Amino acid sequence: MPEFLELLPPAQAWEVFRNALPSAVLPAERLAVVQARGRVTAEPVVSPENLPAFSRSTVDGYAVQARDTFGASESLPAYLKLIGEVPMGAAPSFSIRRGECALIHTGGMLPEGADAVVMLEHTQSSRPDEVEILRAVPSGENVLLAGEDVRIGEVVLPAGVRLEDAQIGGLTALGILEVNVVRQPRVGILSSGDEVIPPERQPQPGQVRDINSYSLSALVERHGGLAVRYGIVPDRPEVLRETLRHALSECDAVVITAGSSASTRDFTAAVINEMGAPGVLVHGVNVKPGKPTILGVCNGKPVIGLPGNPVSALVIARLFVVPVLRSLLGLSGEVWQSAVRAVLTVNLASQAGREDYFPVQLIRKGETLFAEPIFYKSNLIFTLARADGLVKIPASATGLGVGEEVDVQLL
Amino acid sequence: MPEFLELLPPAQAWEVFRNALPSAVLPAERLAVVQARGRVTAEPVVSPENLPAFSRSTVDGYAVQARDTFGASESLPAYLKLIGEVPMGAAPSFSIRRGECALIHTGGMLPEGADAVVMLEHTQSSRPDEVEILRAVPSGENVLLAGEDVRIGEVVLPAGVRLEDAQIGGLTALGILEVNVVRQPRVGILSSGDEVIPPERQPQPGQVRDINSYSLSALVERHGGLAVRYGIVPDRPEVLRETLRHALSECDAVVITAGSSASTRDFTAAVINEMGAPGVLVHGVNVKPGKPTILGVCNGKPVIGLPGNPVSALVIARLFVVPVLRSLLGLSGEVWQSAVRAVLTVNLASQAGREDYFPVQLIRKGETLFAEPIFYKSNLIFTLARADGLVKIPASATGLGVGEEVDVQLL
Repeated sequence: MPEFLELLPPAQAWEVFRNALPSAVLPAERLAVVQARGRVTAEPVVSPENLPAFSRSTVDGYAVQARDTFGASESLPAYLKLIGEVPMGAAPSFSIRRGECALIHTGGMLPEGADAVVMLEHTQSSRPDEVEILRAVPSGENVLLAGEDVRIGEVVLPAGVRLEDAQIGGLTALGILEVNVVRQPRVGILSSGDEVIPPERQPQPGQVRDINSYSLSALVERHGGLAVRYGIVPDRPEVLRETLRHALSECDAVVITAGSSASTRDFTAAVINEMGAPGVLVHGVNVKPGKPTILGVCNGKPVIGLPGNPVSALVIARLFVVPVLRSLLGLSGEVWQSAVRAVLTVNLASQAGREDYFPVQLIRKGETLFAEPIFYKSNLIFTLARADGLVKIPASATGLGVGEEVDVQLL
Repeated sequence: MPEFLELLPPAQAWEVFRNALPSAVLPAERLAVVQARGRVTAEPVVSPENLPAFSRSTVDGYAVQARDTFGASESLPAYLKLIGEVPMGAAPSFSIRRGECALIHTGGMLPEGADAVVMLEHTQSSRPDEVEILRAVPSGENVLLAGEDVRIGEVVLPAGVRLEDAQIGGLTALGILEVNVVRQPRVGILSSGDEVIPPERQPQPGQVRDINSYSLSALVERHGGLAVRYGIVPDRPEVLRETLRHALSECDAVVITAGSSASTRDFTAAVINEMGAPGVLVHGVNVKPGKPTILGVCNGKPVIGLPGNPVSALVIARLFVVPVLRSLLGLSGEVWQSAVRAVLTVNLASQAGREDYFPVQLIRKGETLFAEPIFYKSNLIFTLARADGLVKIPASATGLGVGEEVDVQLL
């Protein structure tokens, strides 16, 4: 597919690409739960037990038989005999009979015979062995029944969920100490260009240091992948062919930052096509920055050609590389677009039919939050390094006006 | 300070707490840039060189002397002699004199004598050694001058910036391979409660497994800290005293999940006060869940007492533990509140003067995104594990109505 014959809108490009991606999630590996933060469940997690394991009080108060409180009020309290205190962390040694009550703390185990708890605030105590109940409670009040949170055999976490604080706490609550998570996707990263040198070298006139290998590695790792760098490929098809084949043999996906010239991009697409069917699916996306994007799948492995421009590469990686990682990880569920609302400080022009992304800084002046676009002439990576987020101009718009409220997607 | 004498609003509680936090950021350590993702710059990063190091073309086209193009148009082209092609990655071996031009690619080094580049699209070529220029360019057009992006000695990244993709790419662009970052804050975590047992043990009647040690560790690590778990402390002041002293001697901050009973929380505050001045600053915050929160500073180290309820602990940790981590890391700049807008599916009642947080699931129905609150009776950690985000009801409101648009902060 020659370059730019047809520029697809980003959403449509993703659809074409997504439909050719492998449907199988990567294989699972077993990890200690304490090592699994940020990882993704490979299968549904089923509860091995009831939670709570016993009926518990949800407040500080007195465990009672609810029927003993019927009709109780401030003016006409029910008088119950105090028979003891429920210890924390152990079963009470007594049961509650008619006319009796026991002091209980939040989380304490409900004694046998009791079916409700009266909150401390709704009682008073005039004699040591007697409690005045000032309010009636129905059966079950302030009590969490055994198994009410989670029942044995219930799916507590589906497959495809990222394990963060709450999920990890949920697993330890059930005594689950190991979990099957999806293996981290290995993403091969190739930089290309005769002018690109490794960052440890001193550039000679005409040379620039590699940015993309390192910025893209960081992005891949931030989103749950393992980055494998294959170095800098000169602008020669035979070297690209060999390196790409090697990367594909070791990785689950490969990202190439195609050189800046059109001829390099063209042979990049040709080399991707040699790596297996269906090959290049999208060559050129109607987005700025990032028009010369290549999306392909070779023998079930995604291959993405990003623009050589480091700012473009990072913007486009957010549109296509991050979703590929989600797909390989089997992350289910929609990606919710979280944004900060801010007021645009200038007019932004955009070509109709093209989706544009502008890096902006957020600036608070008084009560108002402003989005100030950072304009750049070049591939200045520091433009993005200093930006707080991106403002998107949809394809349907021809720009956004000064004073308009915009959604800023944080970087 | 006894519990709940005065319930501070969360923002005011934070102000009181923040003013007592150590103003010094943690010490720095030197890391390879490729190992520094997610870490925070300890000092401003100054550029050791100009970027670009040489004047470069920003397009594919022809390097020219701008004055040779003056008056050129489609109908009256300027004819220039083609003297060569600028190689990528090397200085051109020729210079451009009047009436001459050279083919140049994006990123190519501008030959001596040239001061502008005419885009390929605005030229045509009828003879091999001649180019027709169809449009005039001013001096500097499509050229990025040496040092135009970054000048030697310029601060490219201030102190207090988290290093992610663009920042790491910026460092490698300048040949900076090591960077001074702030040491990761060590956060000691103590769970308390006679009823709490380690997750590897089988609970007896009345016992529950530890959740908070693990969920809070995950939260601390997600936000750039190192969690150090000190296990489960029984409800005895002398054990808490000893464990807290030990934790404070090894950590930069300590988080205690105080037991569920009021008496435990009271002796927790008393023990914190013994650890050094100023001690407990806030005891009770007007927020739901999370009223029994304790905020203290002992000899320059923050100590936070969280509610024992695992859902409350995680909500409150977002309000106070995460900002403490930011403070210890010296993360400068405002935290931009990113949110997803969604339509509330039910009425949510809230007490005036109290800030409430409700876990919600996001559900898309047709074009509309709905926020569906997950109601819970207990400390069910899975409520939060299944939620997409939190909806906040500000203290000034007495609730939110069904059909209202709300901001959902993703978890």
